[in-house]
Amino acid sequence: MSHVFDEAISVRRTDDVFHATTHPAYSNMVGPFGGITAATVVHALQQHPDTLGEPLAVTINYTAPIADGDWDLFTSAVRTNRTNQHWVFRIEQHGDIVSTGTAVFGLHRPTWSNTEAQPPTAPPVEEIEPLEFPEFIAWARNYDKRFVTGGLDAGASDDSTSTLWIRDAPERPLDYPALMSITDSFYPRVFLRHGTYMPAGTISLTTYFHATPGELSEHGTAHLLATASAARFAGGHYDQHGRVWSVPGEGEPVLLASTHQLVYFKNPQPQE
Amino acid sequence: MSHVFDEAISVRRTDDVFHATTHPAYSNMVGPFGGITAATVVHALQQHPDTLGEPLAVTINYTAPIADGDWDLFTSAVRTNRTNQHWVFRIEQHGDIVSTGTAVFGLHRPTWSNTEAQPPTAPPVEEIEPLEFPEFIAWARNYDKRFVTGGLDAGASDDSTSTLWIRDAPERPLDYPALMSITDSFYPRVFLRHGTYMPAGTISLTTYFHATPGELSEHGTAHLLATASAARFAGGHYDQHGRVWSVPGEGEPVLLASTHQLVYFKNPQPQE
Repeated sequence: MSHVFDEAISVRRTDDVFHATTHPAYSNMVGPFGGITAATVVHALQQHPDTLGEPLAVTINYTAPIADGDWDLFTSAVRTNRTNQHWVFRIEQHGDIVSTGTAVFGLHRPTWSNTEAQPPTAPPVEEIEPLEFPEFIAWARNYDKRFVTGGLDAGASDDSTSTLWIRDAPERPLDYPALMSITDSFYPRVFLRHGTYMPAGTISLTTYFHATPGELSEHGTAHLLATASAARFAGGHYDQHGRVWSVPGEGEPVLLASTHQLVYFKNPQPQE
Repeated sequence: MSHVFDEAISVRRTDDVFHATTHPAYSNMVGPFGGITAATVVHALQQHPDTLGEPLAVTINYTAPIADGDWDLFTSAVRTNRTNQHWVFRIEQHGDIVSTGTAVFGLHRPTWSNTEAQPPTAPPVEEIEPLEFPEFIAWARNYDKRFVTGGLDAGASDDSTSTLWIRDAPERPLDYPALMSITDSFYPRVFLRHGTYMPAGTISLTTYFHATPGELSEHGTAHLLATASAARFAGGHYDQHGRVWSVPGEGEPVLLASTHQLVYFKNPQPQE
């Protein structure tokens, strides 16, 4: 029996074009959840016969709303170097460009390694109750989310940080598309600052993948420790920066991905 | 008399194509300094008659080395919304694609605003001596650089953080191209960890512009306070995250830009 995530990211290829369809299980308030769109791009590029190695960096720009239904992903491998490969892509729907982006794939080479970043402190996942999001955020039902801080029920906060344990529900072994999706799974930071919903949406998202295939497979189906904050809100935009960690029972935490996004928001009555 | 930075970023437009030429004053060890290439893209897009508002986000992928000489920037405004506009671009040289990227331009709208990030602590710029980089890093001579921590002369460090006061030399009023360039001006973090040079280069760079035109003009020609660190080095890559602040004599510091990049590095003998 296939996982609903695999159904949602499935694609059919015609040369450099991949055909996909939105999945109701990953609907957002308007159109599909951006994370599932980005995950579908990663999954598609992994299926391309010319692809070199694993995803290292993906930038996706959400240029226009995606409607429920079919969409086409146009890809082009513009440059293949010895250890990395550059892709450009766009998503079209009914003749409109609804997303653009670039991706870097490549090989993990043996080098000196070191992690400077530290994971946030968090109690064990078993000690935290899962948080359900409201019914109209359909995609969130496919994630088990246990907030250490900054849950959607937290009320207004001076600190836009959310830290949570998260994994697919039902469980699913972690892979690059799933990691991509989770890097876009933080609800808008501006909701947390105001303790309320308001119009907000990702404009541009960049994720850097540190994870090797071996690290993904060692992580398996466990919860990930994810954290995100905003740096500055102004002029109708803010930037979000986040990190996703694998925290094994024994051994060192592994930084699997870092992620950044520029977000649009709207509140009609300026405060302060 | 024009500033050398203006000479370096100058472009000539033919419809959606901009013609540029590398400038010897901004050479790097191999080819031009990436920051000046990105700055030229920002400058070009600002010259396009169809451009809406100011730069909000730019992602540039350095797909292949740029040779000294002429290059062409191909731009396309793929989507103009009410308050933002999405561009895709590529740079070609001798028929090869040497860079790809996307840019978001848009309007700053009146909204609630707040800055959560804190600038690093730093003594006044006057108390720090400028640091000269070696002769073979030509571009660095066009910046007055005063390191608070993590200078290129710092030796090996367990912490990849560099914090510095930086501005164009000679002085030049801050604008978006100059800010773009400065977000790529941090020397490779892996040099700082090892206290030595090694092959390293930016693969993909994303900068989010928070600055309004008014904030740039208020900043003027003062030094910027810039800081950058890496989170994880592994498999021949690391991610760098940085911030660039305006720190007025009186009043609150202003976060002008946040920036992220994925960097390639190579050391043939794995340590640890």
